[in-house]
Amino acid sequence: MSLSIIGSVALDTVETPYGKKKDILGGSAIYSSVSASFFTAVNLISVVGNDFPEKYTRMLDKKGIDIRGLEVKKGKTFRWEARYRDLNCAETLNTHLNVFEGFRPKIPPHITPKGDLLLANIDPELQECIFKRIRPKGLVSCDTMNLWITQKKKVLEKLLKKVDLFLLNDAEACQLSGENNLFEAARYIADKGAKMIVIKKGEHGVLFFSPDLKFILPAYLLEKVKDPTGAGDTFAGGMVGYLAEQKKINDRILREAMVYGTILASFAVENFGGESLAKVDSKAITKRRGDFEKLTRFYK
Amino acid sequence: MSLSIIGSVALDTVETPYGKKKDILGGSAIYSSVSASFFTAVNLISVVGNDFPEKYTRMLDKKGIDIRGLEVKKGKTFRWEARYRDLNCAETLNTHLNVFEGFRPKIPPHITPKGDLLLANIDPELQECIFKRIRPKGLVSCDTMNLWITQKKKVLEKLLKKVDLFLLNDAEACQLSGENNLFEAARYIADKGAKMIVIKKGEHGVLFFSPDLKFILPAYLLEKVKDPTGAGDTFAGGMVGYLAEQKKINDRILREAMVYGTILASFAVENFGGESLAKVDSKAITKRRGDFEKLTRFYK
Repeated sequence: MSLSIIGSVALDTVETPYGKKKDILGGSAIYSSVSASFFTAVNLISVVGNDFPEKYTRMLDKKGIDIRGLEVKKGKTFRWEARYRDLNCAETLNTHLNVFEGFRPKIPPHITPKGDLLLANIDPELQECIFKRIRPKGLVSCDTMNLWITQKKKVLEKLLKKVDLFLLNDAEACQLSGENNLFEAARYIADKGAKMIVIKKGEHGVLFFSPDLKFILPAYLLEKVKDPTGAGDTFAGGMVGYLAEQKKINDRILREAMVYGTILASFAVENFGGESLAKVDSKAITKRRGDFEKLTRFYK
Repeated sequence: MSLSIIGSVALDTVETPYGKKKDILGGSAIYSSVSASFFTAVNLISVVGNDFPEKYTRMLDKKGIDIRGLEVKKGKTFRWEARYRDLNCAETLNTHLNVFEGFRPKIPPHITPKGDLLLANIDPELQECIFKRIRPKGLVSCDTMNLWITQKKKVLEKLLKKVDLFLLNDAEACQLSGENNLFEAARYIADKGAKMIVIKKGEHGVLFFSPDLKFILPAYLLEKVKDPTGAGDTFAGGMVGYLAEQKKINDRILREAMVYGTILASFAVENFGGESLAKVDSKAITKRRGDFEKLTRFYK
């Protein structure tokens, strides 16, 4: 099966204790697409300006990511600038929507309702618009961020009725639900209609909630994290990408999908930008999957 | 084998969003001893005042904890008062050392160098004094807290040379080492002489570091936490108590010991005080051990 991903494509300027990088490849759709592309065929739906470096287009193409849905508009690509004083907290210095301002995506004809859909983090109105145009019959997943919970909570909650798998981080789950306890937060989100919920806790791992399954997974233990940007998007892409290739979804497969999300996210934070993530190879992923098992196994 | 535990015995007054309890049974040696007593024979070494309620003495006795090393001194039992506005952070309102002031423990003759020793969280000078008097031949474990790192870092670090297993929380590991990264923190502590290091992350689980083994374990997922007091002490007691009963220590056994520490800590935080923890039965522990496996297992 295939997976269509809508989200942002950005040129990020990021400063962490390990250095500063200017205009590197970023955005939720990039991290998710690159991550998912290790497992399934990805259709990327987004927009860039005509300043978008050709080397990045070539890289996406080389990864087998279908970019016929990546519109090139006259103007500047979306820009995000942030600084991490410590690695747990991004301080946004600048956000320039640029070509995203008033963006109304066209759905290219090769994207049909048959495949899965990941609404990566972006304005929920845009997520809803895409959902309505595609009317997907496969698994629908959705990610978000604090900004949209503050600005467009109602739109987001309306969207949740249509979502099979909703991913967000712990702070966002508390913000959305008004609860301090993640169990209560998950219950609130489930009441809004999401069938499965993943609460991401960064370096502390992830929680999964559905009526049939509760599952906890720690994060992969890394000696060094250089840039946490995109970790959550990468997790989402890895998890959903893995699921897109399965004939059916059951407990075991959901657990395994979260393991792959975790592994991909661990690669994402070891270096700066989406381009580094694209350089990971399948062998390294399989190797780390095994290391993760050794790192966490306690069963006989 | 047996396990001797030195630490504090206290009457705690604790307020959390779930209520306020006055003069309940607490202290590092209580949580550790009760927890360890599910697995091994425990000798408690500490001091209380003559105001210490007899019902607590009876309870300890009923749990099979040997209290011949629990001195009763004229005066008041150690008191600690704290408030949790949210469950992640205790705000200490009062600490009265009382009978601990100038306490010099006597080692009763039934405590020999043969067994294991847990130096539960207390003044490192007292920990060192006990270590010197017992000269234990078994496993020596040690816990601590931020206060001692601030006030008696040198004494604590000197003690680490004699310690096989050192347990502390993530903030304390960073404070002690001056590092932000837990890998670096563990390295610092290992350089000081501790052979095995457990870094406790509260609701986010625990990390284990030794030259031969790295291991991560999430915490047990609870619907409700009523009072986090003593969670770390309970973890230590459960882990070390389990180890005390093993003929040898290897990777598999260390992992399993951490699982039991985690399970016992999960019971400790579900209710107020050490008395509630004592009411847990072995059946419930075994049941939760199985639930924990289901909650975290992703291997085929």
